[in-house]
Amino acid sequence: MTNRKDRRHERLFVIEGVRLVEEAVRSGARFALTVYNPEQLGTTDRGAALQAALSSMPNTYAAPAEVIEAITDTVSPQGVVAAVGWPELEPGRSGVQLVLDAVQDPGNVGTLLRTAEATGVSQVICLAGSADVYSPKVVRAAMGAHFRLPIVQDVDWDEAPSLLIAADNVYAAVANATMPYYAADWRQPSALVVGNEANGVSDVGLAVATKHISIPMVGPVESLNAAVAGSVILFEALRQRKLGRS
Amino acid sequence: MTNRKDRRHERLFVIEGVRLVEEAVRSGARFALTVYNPEQLGTTDRGAALQAALSSMPNTYAAPAEVIEAITDTVSPQGVVAAVGWPELEPGRSGVQLVLDAVQDPGNVGTLLRTAEATGVSQVICLAGSADVYSPKVVRAAMGAHFRLPIVQDVDWDEAPSLLIAADNVYAAVANATMPYYAADWRQPSALVVGNEANGVSDVGLAVATKHISIPMVGPVESLNAAVAGSVILFEALRQRKLGRS
Repeated sequence: MTNRKDRRHERLFVIEGVRLVEEAVRSGARFALTVYNPEQLGTTDRGAALQAALSSMPNTYAAPAEVIEAITDTVSPQGVVAAVGWPELEPGRSGVQLVLDAVQDPGNVGTLLRTAEATGVSQVICLAGSADVYSPKVVRAAMGAHFRLPIVQDVDWDEAPSLLIAADNVYAAVANATMPYYAADWRQPSALVVGNEANGVSDVGLAVATKHISIPMVGPVESLNAAVAGSVILFEALRQRKLGRS
Repeated sequence: MTNRKDRRHERLFVIEGVRLVEEAVRSGARFALTVYNPEQLGTTDRGAALQAALSSMPNTYAAPAEVIEAITDTVSPQGVVAAVGWPELEPGRSGVQLVLDAVQDPGNVGTLLRTAEATGVSQVICLAGSADVYSPKVVRAAMGAHFRLPIVQDVDWDEAPSLLIAADNVYAAVANATMPYYAADWRQPSALVVGNEANGVSDVGLAVATKHISIPMVGPVESLNAAVAGSVILFEALRQRKLGRS
């Protein structure tokens, strides 16, 4: 489970901590293996309730804190770690879809998943070259978005357009487009493509996009962090949809 | 220079890499000490031009790559590191001011400084309890904002209101206010208070604020990363000011 190939073959990923494991239970995730420390979980009512819920799952083992520390890569694991199946969620029918075109930093991918959930994105398509959606750093930064947000990964640009559901426009976020992101009509079904931290949206992505948009800035700032840029645009899309106008 | 107390006493901070040192030269920063590696800098025209500019600064020394690696804490330093004076910039007269109320993570503080510059914020007030604005991680994440953005730090809430310039409203970003951030009129001189990652805006900050605002979200997301939340609001403020309407 510590490398990408194993995670893909088994279609499993690792979650740590009470909150994430609770969400996995609630969402009906398939639990392949769970290790918990009764002394840590037993100290709170919430932990005890989780322990009771886990007792009906297959392959659930009690273990001392040292074992859990050895399995996880966080400094202070919260006494429970589990390998669970990749959630398989159907994408919502309309709204905004997010395409990650080789966003490489796991923190950026996780933050974008969290923002995508917070803004009601209907699905996220992670193109080849992006950080592994199920890697521990992405999972931590996404704070449970994996269980509620339809995510597709390991797709390339040949396949991606056919996965987009009825998008009237595909907007590529680029550094120097003349169209500001807030001039787009995000009330229409659409997709947003966020590109690689160093190189931006790929040539294929730029060609697939129907419009290029930028975030207007003041002064000589070079470019924004990919997670900030994507979040600013997705919250503008939500603002327009909440207000019913642009 | 490696600890906060020394940096404060000398009012110096450390910058690494060609781009940041170039910006320091351009902004007329006071260079206290510079160490560069002629072999690394000499390989590009840009590096050579920087080396020429540095030759007129006091206390500039050539050194082998190992020395620079030992001084800096980046993995691949770009062949130049300098200790320069804290920039002292006068705040702009109007616009949006940003108050960091114990934002602790250096990456968040750096990202917020970068966003503040990109959105034309007129000054940033970092309250006690926030990450040191001149620490290496903040400096790296801010990407040069220190040289162009007026920043005050080591201030507490007793003093902060007197530093705010003619702010018609002080908005505190909180989790559950009924007023959405886009209902505020950011064309008026105003201030935005962003709070601590775990505890939000302090009680004093909430009392000083004239209005509390929230970022509306979809679904059960707990809260946004402080840097993302602050950035979303500051770009909305810029959007309103560019369009001249809310």
